[in-house]
Amino acid sequence: MNAVIYGTSTDPASLGDPDTVPQVNVVALLGGVGGAKLASGLAQLLPPERLTFVVNTADDFEHLGLHISPDLDTVMYTLAGLVNPETGWGVKDDTWNTLAMLAHYKAPTWFRLGDRDLATHLLRTQWLREGFSLNQVTQRLCSLLGVRQRVLPMSDAPVRTWVLTDEGEMAFQEYFVRRAWQPRVRAIRFEGIEQAQPTSAVMNALADADVILFGPSNPFVSLDPILALPEVRDILSAVRAPRVAISPIVAGQALKGPAAKMMHELNLEVSPVTVAAHYRDVLTGFVLDHRDAAYATTITAQMGICTLVTDIVMHDALARARLAREILQFALQQ
Amino acid sequence: MNAVIYGTSTDPASLGDPDTVPQVNVVALLGGVGGAKLASGLAQLLPPERLTFVVNTADDFEHLGLHISPDLDTVMYTLAGLVNPETGWGVKDDTWNTLAMLAHYKAPTWFRLGDRDLATHLLRTQWLREGFSLNQVTQRLCSLLGVRQRVLPMSDAPVRTWVLTDEGEMAFQEYFVRRAWQPRVRAIRFEGIEQAQPTSAVMNALADADVILFGPSNPFVSLDPILALPEVRDILSAVRAPRVAISPIVAGQALKGPAAKMMHELNLEVSPVTVAAHYRDVLTGFVLDHRDAAYATTITAQMGICTLVTDIVMHDALARARLAREILQFALQQ
Repeated sequence: MNAVIYGTSTDPASLGDPDTVPQVNVVALLGGVGGAKLASGLAQLLPPERLTFVVNTADDFEHLGLHISPDLDTVMYTLAGLVNPETGWGVKDDTWNTLAMLAHYKAPTWFRLGDRDLATHLLRTQWLREGFSLNQVTQRLCSLLGVRQRVLPMSDAPVRTWVLTDEGEMAFQEYFVRRAWQPRVRAIRFEGIEQAQPTSAVMNALADADVILFGPSNPFVSLDPILALPEVRDILSAVRAPRVAISPIVAGQALKGPAAKMMHELNLEVSPVTVAAHYRDVLTGFVLDHRDAAYATTITAQMGICTLVTDIVMHDALARARLAREILQFALQQ
Repeated sequence: MNAVIYGTSTDPASLGDPDTVPQVNVVALLGGVGGAKLASGLAQLLPPERLTFVVNTADDFEHLGLHISPDLDTVMYTLAGLVNPETGWGVKDDTWNTLAMLAHYKAPTWFRLGDRDLATHLLRTQWLREGFSLNQVTQRLCSLLGVRQRVLPMSDAPVRTWVLTDEGEMAFQEYFVRRAWQPRVRAIRFEGIEQAQPTSAVMNALADADVILFGPSNPFVSLDPILALPEVRDILSAVRAPRVAISPIVAGQALKGPAAKMMHELNLEVSPVTVAAHYRDVLTGFVLDHRDAAYATTITAQMGICTLVTDIVMHDALARARLAREILQFALQQ
């Protein structure tokens, strides 16, 4: 039953009684900051054992000998209550004195490693070198920070995003951080994706999910790596659970980062329609902002995907919980 | 001509005209803080190309996946003008926010890694992993910090000090930092010393030296590892250059650290005589404090080693330069 549904209210009072939240197993596929906000909204509604977050690792990289997993860290710090609220990533109240000394050594400082943040990279790197898998390391870090939801790297195998730009091909963090996503994108590829498999924890979570969400993350560089894992693609086509994506595009702009700019450079319309079309093979529902309400009928009619039109900008904790609740209710109606 | 010589004065005015400092090649064998102070005194007197510091690496260790070289760092930071003046080691104006986050992760925090200091360990570790030798890494770090004297690790091969105590055998940093040198020492061994060779830079410097100094460092754990390298021992017996040690013991106490406590636990007299006897095979001169003047005749008469009695406590930069000058003049009289 495909339909356009409108969010009833953005009034905080509409959050209602937490007891009425359906107790279902939710798996959300996430990138960085936008995904982490959705995760924290869900964490306000559901007990931790109900929540699994499958996180992009294709923007992981080696820097100064450290294994850095930016998206995993953002999700973990957010759920631990440690995230820098100004940026949405990094650790709150962090300092940059190691970086200052690295500058003294004329070492690269374009990736702004905070002093507190460094502890995570040191421990992850050490444990990986000791032979633990990225999944094992992630579980250990989360456990030590008191994160009780399951935060899962999409794969234990290295997958690395390369961005082909008008200035040549560059590693993702080179494009994203060092060049502040200014070069024009022509194509994107995921090195290692053919050899990579999702972890069994990811596959089990997807198989057991009552609802599968696609976070409001960049489709091309945050969610595509997860979806490019053939086994993930296959199970998403096979499961019966509703699969609902949240648009990272609102009123012609990305909520954060280069998603809109990339769409433009890839000659795609900068609209939620492009996002829905990107995922359409594996989607049953799509959530877009009321400012884009005009696209809802197009998506539902042309793609056979239910739509929810509501306020999708998560300004604060209450807005995150409200949106998470609306999305869950919408998903379970399908 | 063995004799007891007395320092003429501790008056700053006795430092005299720098132009009268003999322009000779000096090699000093050093441990950590005491050695670094002697190095900085010499650096005030002689042009950098005249000075080579051969530094103990047997207290190096791996911690949190990082290769840490405490003695090399102390000498390098001191010569770079970056050392923490309160402690004599570590970086001045450092902070401990990575350590605070490591504590949050319940990771070991007994080795107090400063945030600025971490930059050195990160770069050293990365470059060693890339295949550079410890000597190459040390030259690169020193060059980037503007240290123009040659700071040489005693060897590129790993040598590790183990301390047998009444509580069992423990790795050096475990004994020295974690246990604050409280366990009673029974014996000391240098793992890897049989396979280790001094670098060719060390051997060349010793061969070309006009004066060889033994810093006021712990004989058992700072200088013995250097002297335990058979090739170093051999060349020290063969060269004609004066070889002068400075006592780390003054008035029955160590200038810093566990040297006196170790002597006591090893059933040795806590005095400069023990230090001179320890090095006697390779020594031509010995410098001791005027508070220990009574021992000078014993050392000269019994061991055939010239002695200089002066003020050997380096309270400030001027005292370091004055002592360095007196030592050089004393050495060149032999």
